[in-house]
Amino acid sequence: MRQATDHTPVWLMRQAGRYLPEYRATRARAGSFMGLATNTDYATEVTLQPLERYPLDAAILFSDILTVPDAMGLGLSFALGEGPRFAHPVRDEAAVARLAVPDMERLRYVFDAVSAIRKALQGRLPLIGFSGSPWTLACYMVEGAGSDDYRLVKTMLYARPDLMHRMLAVNADAVAQYLNLQIEAGAQAVMIFDSWGGVLADGAFQQFSLAYTARVLAQLKRSHNGQVVPRIVFTKGGGVWLAEMGQLDCEVLGLDWTVNLGHARKLLCGQAGGPGKALQGNIDPNVLFAGPAQIEAEVLRVLQSFGAPHRASPNDPDRVGPTHIFNLGHGISQHTPPENVAVLVDAVHSASRVMRG
Amino acid sequence: MRQATDHTPVWLMRQAGRYLPEYRATRARAGSFMGLATNTDYATEVTLQPLERYPLDAAILFSDILTVPDAMGLGLSFALGEGPRFAHPVRDEAAVARLAVPDMERLRYVFDAVSAIRKALQGRLPLIGFSGSPWTLACYMVEGAGSDDYRLVKTMLYARPDLMHRMLAVNADAVAQYLNLQIEAGAQAVMIFDSWGGVLADGAFQQFSLAYTARVLAQLKRSHNGQVVPRIVFTKGGGVWLAEMGQLDCEVLGLDWTVNLGHARKLLCGQAGGPGKALQGNIDPNVLFAGPAQIEAEVLRVLQSFGAPHRASPNDPDRVGPTHIFNLGHGISQHTPPENVAVLVDAVHSASRVMRG
Repeated sequence: MRQATDHTPVWLMRQAGRYLPEYRATRARAGSFMGLATNTDYATEVTLQPLERYPLDAAILFSDILTVPDAMGLGLSFALGEGPRFAHPVRDEAAVARLAVPDMERLRYVFDAVSAIRKALQGRLPLIGFSGSPWTLACYMVEGAGSDDYRLVKTMLYARPDLMHRMLAVNADAVAQYLNLQIEAGAQAVMIFDSWGGVLADGAFQQFSLAYTARVLAQLKRSHNGQVVPRIVFTKGGGVWLAEMGQLDCEVLGLDWTVNLGHARKLLCGQAGGPGKALQGNIDPNVLFAGPAQIEAEVLRVLQSFGAPHRASPNDPDRVGPTHIFNLGHGISQHTPPENVAVLVDAVHSASRVMRG
Repeated sequence: MRQATDHTPVWLMRQAGRYLPEYRATRARAGSFMGLATNTDYATEVTLQPLERYPLDAAILFSDILTVPDAMGLGLSFALGEGPRFAHPVRDEAAVARLAVPDMERLRYVFDAVSAIRKALQGRLPLIGFSGSPWTLACYMVEGAGSDDYRLVKTMLYARPDLMHRMLAVNADAVAQYLNLQIEAGAQAVMIFDSWGGVLADGAFQQFSLAYTARVLAQLKRSHNGQVVPRIVFTKGGGVWLAEMGQLDCEVLGLDWTVNLGHARKLLCGQAGGPGKALQGNIDPNVLFAGPAQIEAEVLRVLQSFGAPHRASPNDPDRVGPTHIFNLGHGISQHTPPENVAVLVDAVHSASRVMRG
């Protein structure tokens, strides 16, 4: 996706999902979310669905951010209309002591899906693999489900930082193995979703989220079969720590809608290693509930806030400068009218073509 | 609270609340949250409860951020164990057209409580009044309750910005009248809680939250009975917009736990009018679930991140420099052990005395 193109590339977090009637039909056949995610044919089918409707510029593996703790034996399930839930949350020293990097054979269904999707794509579009970040996995592992105050996981963090560090180290090493096997199976880029990094206090974020994301990145393959594999890090609510995230050893930073892309670009360009990072994001998914004219206006606003891409200089052809990958600032809502997604994708392509013209 | 003291002053958002057994007893007698909030004797009683337990440096009126839309006729209620709910949410053009600044007589119970609390305090501590911000009120008015995606209010914002602007203008003028009457009744400082400003996209925040907070501030009394009335603005999740918040015409900015106080202080000091602003915050309320030693260590970390207060210079005695008011980064959890609050308050006082020594 980082090749020079005549338009800004666009894909959408959770683009294969409940807002699509064809997704809901496949999920009904599969019986459950995990039934869908663990079956290679179904996972391939739903990964391709949004690509048939919209001229998106990348595919993303259909899976869940919590497959790794499920493979650790925590028992992941999704009740209809509810979020994820673990049957065996990790809440005391004994439970933390039992944690280990799981046998990656238990995640074979994910790697098989990656291979099958790559085959089905026939090189038309790049395929992105992903995982939850060590901290985000820990949130769900301790809370056992979503939370609005993160009381249990933060209690462990503040009261027993030793336990939290042990859990995060196991998570980081597991996530690194998991993403490397996705890369070997054919993922052409990988993304780390730190969905709950933004709930941490300054100081705690650096120590308990960022450091373990860095531990994952340090272990990831840089290339596979001679192709560079870009690494994307997305921290929801991480805008206040952008300067520190700019130091991460990754190629792309995903940003939520609170961040001004122009400010982010300027800040990162001032950093050593900064200008090489692409920015991904960041329109508010709720824009998709407005009419076509408003969607087009907001798309233009986001494109303009990033600004024109740098062009390769004749004196320094390697310096292409920062790239913008258009995306939402978080996952698409299940209530989104599918026709509005078409408006957004077309607006990104046409407006960015004019800007680059 | 902005007077030079030998220690950093401390109070806690929601310090009169469910974590205190004596609060729960009063609430049980009152029958309901609104029964408690609308009764002058009960409101006075619970406002004073935390001050009897802890050597806090300020009192804050016991009330709710949503009293103003309730007075507009939206029908506020609190089901036990749930958040606020409006019987008549504002979701279409006709409902927005009906909105008007309410007769302030309907909020008489709040002003009576302020007077009664001032009298009961006998000058021992300053009393802070408050309101929700125009945008935060609008969130609840449209959603009808709390939300995890703010889909309805953001749909109105993106699809019908004209309706949203009208609602926010009414809210701002109502909040300004409401806070001015609290000041006349005896509130010695006022705080605007923009609890949901941080859910907005960059651009939308400035237009739909910040601009209307500024509209409130522009209408507020600067002093009463010859005493300056400091104005505090707190935007949860507003750390990415700190430079713009620094331009607000207010005396204090409240910050959540994601913000580094030292960075904030430095950033604001570089601004015109910046150095005069005090900073309020910002320890993670979940720290209160750890043991005494960890609470003390985290208190010290927050104090040190702000750094030493400037001292009045002999050449420029007016330039006392920024002040730190210690607080949580958001409201205290109902699950907090009361004895841990004593540890926190004592740690703020003793550690800051040593730092100022």
